[in-house]
Amino acid sequence: MFVLGIDPGLTRCGYGVVRRDGRRLEAVAAGVVRTEPSADLADRLADLHREVRSLVDEYRPDEVAVERVLFQVNVRTAMQTGQASGVVMAAAAGASVPVTLYSPNEVKEAVAGWGGADKEQVERMVRTQLGIDAPLRPVDAADAVAVALCHLARAGHPVAMAAGR
Amino acid sequence: MFVLGIDPGLTRCGYGVVRRDGRRLEAVAAGVVRTEPSADLADRLADLHREVRSLVDEYRPDEVAVERVLFQVNVRTAMQTGQASGVVMAAAAGASVPVTLYSPNEVKEAVAGWGGADKEQVERMVRTQLGIDAPLRPVDAADAVAVALCHLARAGHPVAMAAGR
Repeated sequence: MFVLGIDPGLTRCGYGVVRRDGRRLEAVAAGVVRTEPSADLADRLADLHREVRSLVDEYRPDEVAVERVLFQVNVRTAMQTGQASGVVMAAAAGASVPVTLYSPNEVKEAVAGWGGADKEQVERMVRTQLGIDAPLRPVDAADAVAVALCHLARAGHPVAMAAGR
Repeated sequence: MFVLGIDPGLTRCGYGVVRRDGRRLEAVAAGVVRTEPSADLADRLADLHREVRSLVDEYRPDEVAVERVLFQVNVRTAMQTGQASGVVMAAAAGASVPVTLYSPNEVKEAVAGWGGADKEQVERMVRTQLGIDAPLRPVDAADAVAVALCHLARAGHPVAMAAGR
């Protein structure tokens, strides 16, 4: 089973593709889609739509998991991130791939064992589950891989918890 | 000049196409794109993207004007409307049509003469400018026509103000 995890953002949108084969987990691809901050907002959103659609066409995931956008302190950033998440969902569902949303806490809990885990802990647990030694960078990509792992753990495809290894 | 005005929303997204020929204004089309509230959020956003893209392909507007989404009391509604606006912008810009945003106050001021105008006043002024006798319904469509008129008035294409007629 192939899952494309996405940590939505307008300037930096993380993505991670994870394959699960029996109990074996493998990170197939991870990276960040960037749009130019100085460009027109509508053009940036159109670029993001095109890029996400390309990822779906290239990797043909069975399912897409997207981190839910919560309201942050910065209202303008929250609105832009919300717009980006809408575009990401439209691009995936437009390619007929089922989309599931997870809150940041659900992702942390599924991957690191508790909802209060920080970025470093999440990144470390992602690497442990995938058997990767080197640090996962950029961190948006690690977050997106975590979203994919969360989906595999939650959607009736239990992932071997690192704590149990 | 053809302008497609859009009042973004997820359940009801108003649109209005206005043609300007010299000093003559004509409403070519107006309506509402609906998505099913009980359907999956990602599927609704994909439907909205498809519908807006169809409108752009059908009417081939020179420019698209979109009402800017502000934060409202209901956080969940504001986020959904923000996601819908992102999808609308991506669909228009993805078809290479320039997109301009206007705040609700800018629209009211341009169409009704002051930013505090209510929906009824805006609808009445829209009809006066377009020489339409019958009430414009649904009101989301009237709002979208107002956004298109605002763009024509603001973007260096002054519209004959109703007061001057």
